[in-house]
Amino acid sequence: MNAYETIKAKRDGRELPSEEIRAFVDGYVRGDVPDYQMAAFCMAVFFRGMSDAETGALTDAMLRSGEVLDLSSLPGAKVDKHSTGGVGDKVSIALAPIAAACGVVVPMISGRGLGHTGGTLDKLEAIPGFQVRLPASRFREVLAQTGACLIGQTEQLAPADRRLYALRDVTATVESIPLIASSIMSKKLAEGIDALVLDVKVGSGAFMKRLEDAETLARALAGIGRNMGKKVVALLTGMDQPLGCAVGNALEVKEAVELLRGRGPPDLREVTLALAAEMIVLAGRAPTLDAAREQARGVVRDGRAFLKLCQIVEAQGGDPDALADQALLPAAKGTLDVLAPAAGNVQAIDAEAIGLAAVALGAGRARIEDPVDHGVGLLVHKKVGDRVQAGEPLCTVHHGDRGRQTPQAVAERVLRAYQIGEHALSPEPLILARIEG
Amino acid sequence: MNAYETIKAKRDGRELPSEEIRAFVDGYVRGDVPDYQMAAFCMAVFFRGMSDAETGALTDAMLRSGEVLDLSSLPGAKVDKHSTGGVGDKVSIALAPIAAACGVVVPMISGRGLGHTGGTLDKLEAIPGFQVRLPASRFREVLAQTGACLIGQTEQLAPADRRLYALRDVTATVESIPLIASSIMSKKLAEGIDALVLDVKVGSGAFMKRLEDAETLARALAGIGRNMGKKVVALLTGMDQPLGCAVGNALEVKEAVELLRGRGPPDLREVTLALAAEMIVLAGRAPTLDAAREQARGVVRDGRAFLKLCQIVEAQGGDPDALADQALLPAAKGTLDVLAPAAGNVQAIDAEAIGLAAVALGAGRARIEDPVDHGVGLLVHKKVGDRVQAGEPLCTVHHGDRGRQTPQAVAERVLRAYQIGEHALSPEPLILARIEG
Repeated sequence: MNAYETIKAKRDGRELPSEEIRAFVDGYVRGDVPDYQMAAFCMAVFFRGMSDAETGALTDAMLRSGEVLDLSSLPGAKVDKHSTGGVGDKVSIALAPIAAACGVVVPMISGRGLGHTGGTLDKLEAIPGFQVRLPASRFREVLAQTGACLIGQTEQLAPADRRLYALRDVTATVESIPLIASSIMSKKLAEGIDALVLDVKVGSGAFMKRLEDAETLARALAGIGRNMGKKVVALLTGMDQPLGCAVGNALEVKEAVELLRGRGPPDLREVTLALAAEMIVLAGRAPTLDAAREQARGVVRDGRAFLKLCQIVEAQGGDPDALADQALLPAAKGTLDVLAPAAGNVQAIDAEAIGLAAVALGAGRARIEDPVDHGVGLLVHKKVGDRVQAGEPLCTVHHGDRGRQTPQAVAERVLRAYQIGEHALSPEPLILARIEG
Repeated sequence: MNAYETIKAKRDGRELPSEEIRAFVDGYVRGDVPDYQMAAFCMAVFFRGMSDAETGALTDAMLRSGEVLDLSSLPGAKVDKHSTGGVGDKVSIALAPIAAACGVVVPMISGRGLGHTGGTLDKLEAIPGFQVRLPASRFREVLAQTGACLIGQTEQLAPADRRLYALRDVTATVESIPLIASSIMSKKLAEGIDALVLDVKVGSGAFMKRLEDAETLARALAGIGRNMGKKVVALLTGMDQPLGCAVGNALEVKEAVELLRGRGPPDLREVTLALAAEMIVLAGRAPTLDAAREQARGVVRDGRAFLKLCQIVEAQGGDPDALADQALLPAAKGTLDVLAPAAGNVQAIDAEAIGLAAVALGAGRARIEDPVDHGVGLLVHKKVGDRVQAGEPLCTVHHGDRGRQTPQAVAERVLRAYQIGEHALSPEPLILARIEG
């Protein structure tokens, strides 16, 4: 293996044989290929792209750089969901118990929030006592016991991806479809899953701003899954405004619990049930998506999904009483309403700006080492298409006293994120496309 | 300065302000910008290129990363020549004394051979005792005393370029016109020169295989010189076959001495005199190129150029007797003739293959740490357009007993580098273009 020749071949647009990609990644993991060669390679990939075969080989090499969980001793199909990240995306917290209550085994490995998007781990840690760092043995036990377990990436899973991602993050090589796709899939395939549902977010609050880019990513992800013998279904869902109303960790847990109690915002319910139906069908627990959706609705209606979440929380060291009595969850020090300056219809809400406003309150991180305040965040009252009167609250700022900006400054940011006009809007579809691997 | 933003801006094709490029290079020199960020940046430059202003700012930042020699106390104009590298390119050894004998001050900082191209320093070290590592104070003394001094790059001159070049060499980012141009010019401008003549080689044995690429490079180099207030003239010269007949260190010194004695191959003489004339005019020692060329011919004819080389060699610790009595130069252990298999006209000689054959004998380096055998090399007897009879020697292999290949294997490589056919060829022009800054 000659790392120089590999970089040069990619730079010049030649397709790399699988064994060459494997040797390059193995060399990187061993330390024979230094970071500067990998950085040059990633930038060449940014410009030249990768064929399906190359992306598959890269995924496989990263997957095999560490442990691959073997969950075959657990009965039932193992299906996970992965979201490319958005604002107010608390879907996993409701989805995992819904799917598990329908008989799907859900080994879910999630991430932390960074930049304007939140992370499921931070949200779960708003529940007193909840442990997201569990050893593989305990992960397996919780899965066997409750049917779902939600943890963070371990040191043992796809270590090449973790190192590569950190490098891409500082060398402006994150925004490359084959690198994104192989990063996601190497982690997910290391979980020992049989199938995967992808929620590829599209819009102002998503990584992919344009539908065609999201489709390209979804096809790349599905293609890798197909080559690896895993069923993958991707839903492309709108992220032009926050999903649901809550943005911020404890606020989002409350909203997910609302959903499991048969209430909660309709957009959050629509996306969650659509993803649940896909998981249930992929796991072979229902013959059709319609039947699966009915099943999911059923476990919400009869309380089994909420009970399942309580079981999962308890198994992971958390206090299930905090789900029933939400006064036990972290709360903000104070609130401040953002009032509509004039009457009109909400034309748009810049989801990225809302996400960044929440970060400024301390709900998320600007840098990986920043602390998170689990109680703070935003509650969005008026969404796109809603009619507002002058002086009516658009949004409530839930603030602490350790935010990076004052509540007033955050309120101004929120107001700037709103576009209010006279135009009457009919609701946009939320599920934009479905792509099957 | 945010290195990430600089890389991203270049990646996305935005023009970088000069101060941003300076901050990035300064950060690299200080160690704040790690190699992996610089590698990603260089690959982005490979794909996106650089504007003249960006290339100028990069050159300036690298130039100022170290010492800039001030030769203003020496009377007369300081003019250097730089070649982009070829096979059999011993021009500097004859050119520096010719120009100096015509009154030009020639502060020449040269490189070592790497890959198929030779390096002036290795050739000079074939002369017993010759020192290419001199402190700046001694460099200045030799220049004042003889009018020319030929040394290697010091640690103090353009250290950013030296580090960057080593990084580019292992990250497949060498082949980028703005990076090549800024690397050359930062080193040359650190020499304290007033003007520069460039010999941009074009052809199978050169770095630039195509005339248009060589022109682009020449224009980039001239443009940087113009922005820095230095006169730059570039000659584009043919490198489709070796220059002259000798390839290998002591063999090339002998051929350069032949030239200074009024003999030697006509192609070597033509290129050397053309470059000398440019240097003489740039130094203001002759009003026209024709007059300058006549002056250069004069100092060869009357022996002053040869005498000048003897003075330079003596001042740099070398034995000038080895120039007069060439038996004192290192010699090969044995020779082996490469015979023409059939009669015909030489259609082409692959210069790169000839260069690599010389490297295989030990005349050059495959890797920077390889030792060099100064006595070995090739003497090319038949050049493009020459008529050969079957069994006539095309070339003589001068071999040692420490080569990386046997003399027979090298002879076969040489034979494969020759194309012999029936077509009668008229000689190609050697000076292909002249570009002025």
